Amino acid sequence: MLKLYDDPDSGNGYKVLLALALLDIPYDLVEVNAIQGETRKDAFLAKNPNGRIPLLELEDGTLLPESNAILFYLAEGTPYLPDDRLGRARALQWMFFEQYSHEPYIAVLRFWTRHTDKTRENEPQWAEREKKGYEALGVMEKTLAEQDWLLGPAFGGAPSIADISLYAYTHVADQGGFDLSRFPAVRAWIDRFPALPGYLPFAGRLKATDDRKA
Amino acid sequence: MLKLYDDPDSGNGYKVLLALALLDIPYDLVEVNAIQGETRKDAFLAKNPNGRIPLLELEDGTLLPESNAILFYLAEGTPYLPDDRLGRARALQWMFFEQYSHEPYIAVLRFWTRHTDKTRENEPQWAEREKKGYEALGVMEKTLAEQDWLLGPAFGGAPSIADISLYAYTHVADQGGFDLSRFPAVRAWIDRFPALPGYLPFAGRLKATDDRKA
Repeated sequence: MLKLYDDPDSGNGYKVLLALALLDIPYDLVEVNAIQGETRKDAFLAKNPNGRIPLLELEDGTLLPESNAILFYLAEGTPYLPDDRLGRARALQWMFFEQYSHEPYIAVLRFWTRHTDKTRENEPQWAEREKKGYEALGVMEKTLAEQDWLLGPAFGGAPSIADISLYAYTHVADQGGFDLSRFPAVRAWIDRFPALPGYLPFAGRLKATDDRKA
Repeated sequence: MLKLYDDPDSGNGYKVLLALALLDIPYDLVEVNAIQGETRKDAFLAKNPNGRIPLLELEDGTLLPESNAILFYLAEGTPYLPDDRLGRARALQWMFFEQYSHEPYIAVLRFWTRHTDKTRENEPQWAEREKKGYEALGVMEKTLAEQDWLLGPAFGGAPSIADISLYAYTHVADQGGFDLSRFPAVRAWIDRFPALPGYLPFAGRLKATDDRKA
């Protein structure tokens, strides 16, 4: 059985939980409280020297960190990852976009809002991160205005791990203060997910903002 | 013929140039001056709405951005990317690490040093980015102390696109003020690259710091 080390409030972790659900793969969940620093303790660092969840442990004990690498591993040979070379590269293009141009802005403002005392008023980086977050949403909007999923008709026009990867933090972007009303195609794309067979909602979605701040 | 849009001072671009050289793939190079904002002009944004180089144009006009997605595309079916599922995921693990935990610290301090007036003294983010950059080097050191390349003996023990991806900014980390003397395994790994058949040095390596600041 696969084992997943995860913090239920992490959108990076939710990517993997959602993929496992959509792919109907059984697993054991080991909760790790990243907010309280469990990922920086020796026991966890021995499993992932980079000190981050999610972390997948395979049946033979092999450890695989990095949410998007885990998605790729899980989806190979399934409809959630194209089996042609360009399709795989296109999915990866969106996942690297997610980690470099989207997560540091959209996920970080959500994290600051939920788990720190930082605000637009007292954090000098807030405005710049918000601006770049909106730019990332603009890039998604441009593609999703023309097709239902991030990989278009040339790759089957079906949902893929690129969508799973970007859905995780985008659909809770409001929790970091982002206003999605300016992005109708992104909103329509978000609304397509709950109808996918096996869909799992984000636990982090349901938590009150102040639940874990203390 | 492949066409690569690139800024010769970009480490992200150098990843692709190095991969093309090591894989002995011919291409046409189109220089784009990212520092002077060419990637944010309409002509380029029409090719990549995310406004970044490198950008690969395939023979049929298909456009593929994101340095690490390009590396994956180029290396499929070659010795630079394992052909087993776990090996591919392991290579991707390192490449996502590169974009999220390494590039924003090691590449950004180099960029600030070369192309802006920011210094350790006047930029409040400097110390934190330096700390995280050293953490990333520490993660690499831990792995490279045990094996010659980032993918170990289980995956053939040969250089892969994971190494190419991380080499680009690591071998010029000194240009951002990082002291690699504390990382002997990383330094030994850097020294292995010039012996690879087809190796291409980094043009950005050779430029004087102030060449393009003005």
